[in-house]
Amino acid sequence: MDKQNFLLNTWYVACTPDEVQQKPLARMICNIPLVFFRNQDKQIKGLEDYCPHRGAALSLGFVENGQLVCGYHGLRMGDKGKVESMPNQRVENFPCIKAYATVERYGFVWIWPGDQSLVDESLIPELTWATSEDWAYGGGLFNINCDFRLMVDNLMDLTHETYVHASSIGQKEIDEAPVATKMEGKQVVTSRFITDVYAPPFWRNALRANDLADDVKVDRWQECRFDLPSHIMIEVGVAHADNGGYNAPLNLKASSIVVDFITPESDDSIWYFWGMARNFKPHDQELTDSIREGQGKIFLEDLEVLEQQHKNLLRNPDRKVLKLDIDAGGVMARRLIERAIKQEQASSNKAL
Amino acid sequence: MDKQNFLLNTWYVACTPDEVQQKPLARMICNIPLVFFRNQDKQIKGLEDYCPHRGAALSLGFVENGQLVCGYHGLRMGDKGKVESMPNQRVENFPCIKAYATVERYGFVWIWPGDQSLVDESLIPELTWATSEDWAYGGGLFNINCDFRLMVDNLMDLTHETYVHASSIGQKEIDEAPVATKMEGKQVVTSRFITDVYAPPFWRNALRANDLADDVKVDRWQECRFDLPSHIMIEVGVAHADNGGYNAPLNLKASSIVVDFITPESDDSIWYFWGMARNFKPHDQELTDSIREGQGKIFLEDLEVLEQQHKNLLRNPDRKVLKLDIDAGGVMARRLIERAIKQEQASSNKAL
Amino acid sequence: MDKQNFLLNTWYVACTPDEVQQKPLARMICNIPLVFFRNQDKQIKGLEDYCPHRGAALSLGFVENGQLVCGYHGLRMGDKGKVESMPNQRVENFPCIKAYATVERYGFVWIWPGDQSLVDESLIPELTWATSEDWAYGGGLFNINCDFRLMVDNLMDLTHETYVHASSIGQKEIDEAPVATKMEGKQVVTSRFITDVYAPPFWRNALRANDLADDVKVDRWQECRFDLPSHIMIEVGVAHADNGGYNAPLNLKASSIVVDFITPESDDSIWYFWGMARNFKPHDQELTDSIREGQGKIFLEDLEVLEQQHKNLLRNPDRKVLKLDIDAGGVMARRLIERAIKQEQASSNKAL
Repeated sequence: MDKQNFLLNTWYVACTPDEVQQKPLARMICNIPLVFFRNQDKQIKGLEDYCPHRGAALSLGFVENGQLVCGYHGLRMGDKGKVESMPNQRVENFPCIKAYATVERYGFVWIWPGDQSLVDESLIPELTWATSEDWAYGGGLFNINCDFRLMVDNLMDLTHETYVHASSIGQKEIDEAPVATKMEGKQVVTSRFITDVYAPPFWRNALRANDLADDVKVDRWQECRFDLPSHIMIEVGVAHADNGGYNAPLNLKASSIVVDFITPESDDSIWYFWGMARNFKPHDQELTDSIREGQGKIFLEDLEVLEQQHKNLLRNPDRKVLKLDIDAGGVMARRLIERAIKQEQASSNKAL
Repeated sequence: MDKQNFLLNTWYVACTPDEVQQKPLARMICNIPLVFFRNQDKQIKGLEDYCPHRGAALSLGFVENGQLVCGYHGLRMGDKGKVESMPNQRVENFPCIKAYATVERYGFVWIWPGDQSLVDESLIPELTWATSEDWAYGGGLFNINCDFRLMVDNLMDLTHETYVHASSIGQKEIDEAPVATKMEGKQVVTSRFITDVYAPPFWRNALRANDLADDVKVDRWQECRFDLPSHIMIEVGVAHADNGGYNAPLNLKASSIVVDFITPESDDSIWYFWGMARNFKPHDQELTDSIREGQGKIFLEDLEVLEQQHKNLLRNPDRKVLKLDIDAGGVMARRLIERAIKQEQASSNKAL
Repeated sequence: MDKQNFLLNTWYVACTPDEVQQKPLARMICNIPLVFFRNQDKQIKGLEDYCPHRGAALSLGFVENGQLVCGYHGLRMGDKGKVESMPNQRVENFPCIKAYATVERYGFVWIWPGDQSLVDESLIPELTWATSEDWAYGGGLFNINCDFRLMVDNLMDLTHETYVHASSIGQKEIDEAPVATKMEGKQVVTSRFITDVYAPPFWRNALRANDLADDVKVDRWQECRFDLPSHIMIEVGVAHADNGGYNAPLNLKASSIVVDFITPESDDSIWYFWGMARNFKPHDQELTDSIREGQGKIFLEDLEVLEQQHKNLLRNPDRKVLKLDIDAGGVMARRLIERAIKQEQASSNKAL
């Protein structure tokens, strides 16, 4: 087997439920071409995107009665990868295709691309904000041509906000503040606290949206939490200065969680599910939309940086990059990833 | 020599005469970059698209007095691949380029891409409809990114009409009718007869065009005839029910021949010459145009299916596809192709 | 080391000064991704386009106080490839990146992509027309997908003007006139003299611009001068016939120098800096602009010829091209290039 770049026995976000309506959805994940569709119970199921009859892409077909009908010769595929029927054919001995455990939860569709005998739904991360009335969520999806670990690095070191996102969330004081990185259980945490500064435009908007003055000094925080395989939740916020910062009472701060699910598409590309969960004015849909739009514009600024970086690193495979304190979050996350992949491969070889 | 994927000592359709007017035509066939132009007798000739002076593409030049003039330095190439002249140069000892036997017949330009010592014009298939006053023909050309055998499969199993062409020629009864496949001499024939059904939209139009009621039940037939290297003629039609079907008198049926010449461009792409020959209202040009337009739209629906199938099969080289009864036509055609390629290679090695 | 296709210890034109203003310029030269920017003295400097921190492309950053600031995390790069600072970091031991000798001269930016210990500014070619009040210059830049030597061939054999540029500078008499090729010191010179002909459109315009009758016969000349690594200056002009041609008095001729700097981008692509220097009406900016526009259109005609030729030659690596008298200039230039590359590699191996 080739060198494996991803963890496979784990949950990734595959898509959002709205992406799978009447039409099947084609999506490659961890180098596997997949098709997603809704079965008779309207549950989303993921299968290999490969018709066992002649190799057509099932995603070009249609769904009828919860079966995925191949658009070429009408083979009907069931949601477990077993052929249900085909006009004028006995299908009992037709080969099956691989079905992948797929779970709809928290507004996302989760997939387990690895060994299906190891599937464990309890390993889907718990997202408390996703089930609470006090929180609102808005987000989007980008397809980016880079190694998934470059996006992990990006999100575990927010120093780049000062440069990449200078006009929205960046501010000079970020890279002047020291960063602290540690393990909390199986989680890598990178934190930065900035005190007594003026908020940048994005956060001034958030303060106003939260009915707070935006022209006074604030304390600001960023706490990036990485979990395997490649999920990063970032607690971010500002509080009117000298009220306890991160621990300030709700009516003196605006805070939220930047939600990042990074799903490898191939060795050289990712599906990046980004969004923001907030616990102020959760029922204000207009606010949700305007934050989503603003965040989308900001995160677009990372795309070219990451794609060019990926090309540069591919061109210079033997050149070492630096590992500074600000990089510690990414470095520790990569170490977790590498170790987990090795373990996964070791047990997979043992199983063989 | 690499594994050969195509038969070379045979006739393929290279282009249609209207494609080669004043300007030379560049076209790759069986991985060979070719240029077609008209010589002094207005005959179309095919040569390597390679100037023996410095390797320029002759197709970027122009034609003068039946010679192909290189657009770079004015070398004049004759229609047999021999350099005729070049300003201020003695050209007797210039290397020749390869000339390919090219014949204009039946409204197509035929080329023999293989060993030129084996060229035999009598092997060009006879197309009686193409020379008869009682028939009309209209057609077009698609460039599709797939192995040429996937298009052979496609055309030798019309079950796919129900799915790919649901709104025009497809109907549920097609895949309920059994299919019969046999050899007739060197020809693979796949037939399907459907009785006592209502005609789908395309055929209702044809009935009306033929001054026949379109709201009565019909018998319908499809007879696919494959000949080496990759030509498929499909007799199709509908007759008012219970009048003998295929053998019904002319005034009770609408019938035609779907004409398919598949010419490999490369291992991964084809030139697909499609069309329809009909023996009703042959002088009605408006009808010819409307049928061509309808057929073009229908055949466009196959493109994405075939291109995705080709990608899927390339990704899974060791995965076997099924060989059902409906696939028998394609399977037998592929067997003929494979055997003929082996023979061709064996005699070519012997010749060496 | 791979087979080297370019001379590296030499000066190439990298860009023009107007291309490097506030924003850094990314440009690949001889397969090396480079970034150009202006230092504190407004001098243009060329560095590897690679941030030593995490491999980001420095060209996506910005320039501040003559330092190139990485757009990812704010590392500040000095003009010698040494890191100057980074927020909150000690940078003394950061790895340097390679800096390339870069000189702004004659309206071009010159770069030495090879061994920096061998840099010698005196080897930049002397361009007298570029420093004289009596001359005007206008030019442009094309990015073409071909081996740089194909452009050398193109410019050392102007026979192609008759065919590629038939409607502007081409005329039948060019390829009827003999061509002479010789070495003058380290320079390859190809000349062609045509007497007593009518001037083609481009030159009729030039005669009129020079206040000379354009409806009388002229003598015409072309003298192509190739210098290593791949610079070609072509003296071209027309004089009213029988006044000494090339040597005719200034008031009886229109002449100029076609300026061609060919800089390899990769093995398969070039940066082609083209232009025209003239010593008549040097202060007529409108004339400069109209000549530039005309020349740009003419030179565009070469693009597809060269790109197709490059593809044809890649497809036929073992096929020999002809070496006719008209090709002698290109052949001799290639011989100089090949010999110089061998010498460069020999001394580089010796140095190791």
